[in-house]
Amino acid sequence: MYEKHYPGHKSVFKLNDIAIGEDFVIAAGPCAVESEQQLKAVINQIYPYVHVVRGGLFKARTSPHAFSGVGSSGIDWLTEVSQKYDKPVVVEALDREQLALLAPKIDIIQIGARNMYNYPLLAAAAATERIILLKRHFAATVDELLLAAEHILTQGNPNVILCERGIRTFETRTRNCLDLGAVAALKQLTHLPIFVDPSHAAGDASLVPPLCRAAVAAGADGLLLEVHQAPAKALSDGPQSLTPSQLKQICVDVNAILSGVFCRDSRINVEF
Amino acid sequence: MYEKHYPGHKSVFKLNDIAIGEDFVIAAGPCAVESEQQLKAVINQIYPYVHVVRGGLFKARTSPHAFSGVGSSGIDWLTEVSQKYDKPVVVEALDREQLALLAPKIDIIQIGARNMYNYPLLAAAAATERIILLKRHFAATVDELLLAAEHILTQGNPNVILCERGIRTFETRTRNCLDLGAVAALKQLTHLPIFVDPSHAAGDASLVPPLCRAAVAAGADGLLLEVHQAPAKALSDGPQSLTPSQLKQICVDVNAILSGVFCRDSRINVEF
Amino acid sequence: MYEKHYPGHKSVFKLNDIAIGEDFVIAAGPCAVESEQQLKAVINQIYPYVHVVRGGLFKARTSPHAFSGVGSSGIDWLTEVSQKYDKPVVVEALDREQLALLAPKIDIIQIGARNMYNYPLLAAAAATERIILLKRHFAATVDELLLAAEHILTQGNPNVILCERGIRTFETRTRNCLDLGAVAALKQLTHLPIFVDPSHAAGDASLVPPLCRAAVAAGADGLLLEVHQAPAKALSDGPQSLTPSQLKQICVDVNAILSGVFCRDSRINVEF
Amino acid sequence: MYEKHYPGHKSVFKLNDIAIGEDFVIAAGPCAVESEQQLKAVINQIYPYVHVVRGGLFKARTSPHAFSGVGSSGIDWLTEVSQKYDKPVVVEALDREQLALLAPKIDIIQIGARNMYNYPLLAAAAATERIILLKRHFAATVDELLLAAEHILTQGNPNVILCERGIRTFETRTRNCLDLGAVAALKQLTHLPIFVDPSHAAGDASLVPPLCRAAVAAGADGLLLEVHQAPAKALSDGPQSLTPSQLKQICVDVNAILSGVFCRDSRINVEF
Repeated sequence: MYEKHYPGHKSVFKLNDIAIGEDFVIAAGPCAVESEQQLKAVINQIYPYVHVVRGGLFKARTSPHAFSGVGSSGIDWLTEVSQKYDKPVVVEALDREQLALLAPKIDIIQIGARNMYNYPLLAAAAATERIILLKRHFAATVDELLLAAEHILTQGNPNVILCERGIRTFETRTRNCLDLGAVAALKQLTHLPIFVDPSHAAGDASLVPPLCRAAVAAGADGLLLEVHQAPAKALSDGPQSLTPSQLKQICVDVNAILSGVFCRDSRINVEF
Repeated sequence: MYEKHYPGHKSVFKLNDIAIGEDFVIAAGPCAVESEQQLKAVINQIYPYVHVVRGGLFKARTSPHAFSGVGSSGIDWLTEVSQKYDKPVVVEALDREQLALLAPKIDIIQIGARNMYNYPLLAAAAATERIILLKRHFAATVDELLLAAEHILTQGNPNVILCERGIRTFETRTRNCLDLGAVAALKQLTHLPIFVDPSHAAGDASLVPPLCRAAVAAGADGLLLEVHQAPAKALSDGPQSLTPSQLKQICVDVNAILSGVFCRDSRINVEF
Repeated sequence: MYEKHYPGHKSVFKLNDIAIGEDFVIAAGPCAVESEQQLKAVINQIYPYVHVVRGGLFKARTSPHAFSGVGSSGIDWLTEVSQKYDKPVVVEALDREQLALLAPKIDIIQIGARNMYNYPLLAAAAATERIILLKRHFAATVDELLLAAEHILTQGNPNVILCERGIRTFETRTRNCLDLGAVAALKQLTHLPIFVDPSHAAGDASLVPPLCRAAVAAGADGLLLEVHQAPAKALSDGPQSLTPSQLKQICVDVNAILSGVFCRDSRINVEF
Repeated sequence: MYEKHYPGHKSVFKLNDIAIGEDFVIAAGPCAVESEQQLKAVINQIYPYVHVVRGGLFKARTSPHAFSGVGSSGIDWLTEVSQKYDKPVVVEALDREQLALLAPKIDIIQIGARNMYNYPLLAAAAATERIILLKRHFAATVDELLLAAEHILTQGNPNVILCERGIRTFETRTRNCLDLGAVAALKQLTHLPIFVDPSHAAGDASLVPPLCRAAVAAGADGLLLEVHQAPAKALSDGPQSLTPSQLKQICVDVNAILSGVFCRDSRINVEF
């Protein structure tokens, strides 16, 4: 069934001083970059706790009437922040035009959950030769996620990170059901690093810290988190956005689990 | 929430001598066009029972190793068949390049379930000014389907057909669960015509005829069906493909329900 | 896997002048019997369109604070109605005590969806030697429903009617998703009659008529419907309860489909 | 909506030297007690790592042809083990007769997932005045679980433990999807202790250890685990049963998370 997944092995991608797949990675930032000022305000507060800066420029919004991001004008803001704090950046691309704009300047290209089945986009993303962060569709089986990754891997790009972000069920207390059994299963089925995004799964910031701890304890290789300097004022996904101080506390707990259970060091200094 | 849906009204799109939304429509043909010969063999057997010819040229396959269609070479075969039998054609497009190839020659552009959330593709499809057949993603709510349609409608293209094709649940006896409650709900929520594709929902040809009858009885405006002259030899979706004679029997039953319940005439002469 | 299901055969249970499994059956009445007066008011309006009277006496309510039925005092009201109009009655039992009260006087014992996995109750119901109407749990697979029936059949009671009433999915526009693919599959897998309850699936009376038509067209052997003489005043399930005149119109459509597609006569005279 | 849940408070039930809700609890033992010898063999190997002994006597089996437990003859074996090692015992009851047999001798009565909606059984269980371990049905919402607990609480029995054990989704790599977001949500909505059963959710022993760690990290108050001295020979649920040595390693990890994140001591000495 799979020609490009190697259970028993473990991929490691070097990026600046991070070894993704080996070092535990915290990727955090605003759901949507709203302005240069907002981006700098939030990253300035969280950079010590973050290995990778995330920031959405092109937002796939269910309604055509919703805020859809600042677009390409934000690329330079992100690269400036990236250089200032020496942190790589992850941004989502929704189509080939966006891929062409992002690939020269952005370290990691995110394929969002809604595009996991968009095979032409996967092939085009692969061709950028960037690291691809591939999110599981909220109705995708584990096997469909692995096959979507295979669409990238067969194009000759081995640098794929899988990301679990919750599946759609009947439950309404949470936005999606974070499927950590899938994380455990994926670790047996593939060599690729596996991140977890509890922000989208929870849909509520108060549920994000326990799910972050659970994801790390389940064996995730990284977390993808939405943080906003003032969640109540966020233009998108405010209810699920963490404050900078919540992120710091998550890092404290992540450190405890990594060192206590996995003998790993996150290299995040929470005394900062 | 919706700016472009008009419950209480009913859209009608004229296409050759069909009035979609007013006349009941049977769109049928092979899941994948496999060759010129195969296309002609199957259409030659089913054209009397079909208002629209369907045929897949570019197949979105979960595995990159599966048959992915004959591609653009099939366009001329389809237009030839279209002219010979005076039947419009529906073909799925997976990306902008395919849209550009199909739009000049194909009457109805299908956006498949996997691309329902691919908003840039929806906008590009809208711009072709063709009729768009928009399939519900197998994990999309009714409201997300209506909003996906709104992505097309707000681009100035009013010619959208919605298509229910089954949702993903825990049940494994059928491939997907055909959601006819959604069809009934959609008829209250929008003016757009609503088709049903029981082939993908069932995943098994023996279940397709009862689901066709059910869809018509629930009020569907059309059916989208996979038919193959030799299902056991089909390169894709063989198990759910109908034979030409099964299609004919479905038309007999559709006629009975349309006339008995809705006082409509399908204008399909099953005495042929 | 199954020792007591005989695909290819068809069970028929005689009850008064009905042959369940052979004749199409409409079982209708109030979700909950609220009073003697209310029961008579509704049945008096609908008896010509009904083969079996349904009426809930013991309601399994999700909240312990909700109305839970009039209890055993309603048994005599139902038997009186039953005799007056010469219609058999179906009532749900939630435990053994209720089974003991109902079995001597009630023709068909309903095991509700919430109790499909309650195997001691299934065995006790089987022992009453009554016809058992076994509803599919809203999260049960087709195979689990067949095995639940097998729990009854292996106790020596062959008189089991299966009933599809919708499964729980992510969709919120309908209360449950009526799974007519399961009905089609069940007809291939068992000899038992299969009823459909669109009222619980829809959760909204305006969606019930199209789902009734769809169920009949899919091949159901009967319908289980909630009717109330004044739905807005119902103590339970008002929003999904039909009015008597809606029920009559459903019978008109059922007749058309039965005669047009299945060459069957429902023996309901809608000219009444 | 709730009259008997007190968010912000935390229930603590004393049982021997355990304070459920305050101390972290590991409840483990065989899915089904198969014989006196088997019970003693497995408990003899795991008692140092276990606060509560679990052992199924009456098994609700989907098929009537499957092994359904040793029944009441196992009660004395369990009480003997309980006294020998000074550990309380939890056993599931499927009906009132079993409740009457278990209540005089068993410390904690389990209501299984299949019976969460069996309200007469909940009321009867409440009346035993024992601690009730109430498992979430695999299709129950968080609110339905809280209301099921309310059925017990309103009967005057305040000693209810909730247990998440996975929900049914489309995914097939795991048997059910362990819903730790529900655990996090429950901790905000009720004062009751919340246990997690990863064995049933995973359906595969190799996935149980990461899910145990995740559950503890998410804030669970206890774990319910299936352990067998020879899983390959188990009469039920063998594939998901842990070996004694796997259980010990889980305790090592649980200790690390409890002390590192929650400053709690499990009081399990894994040096044993």
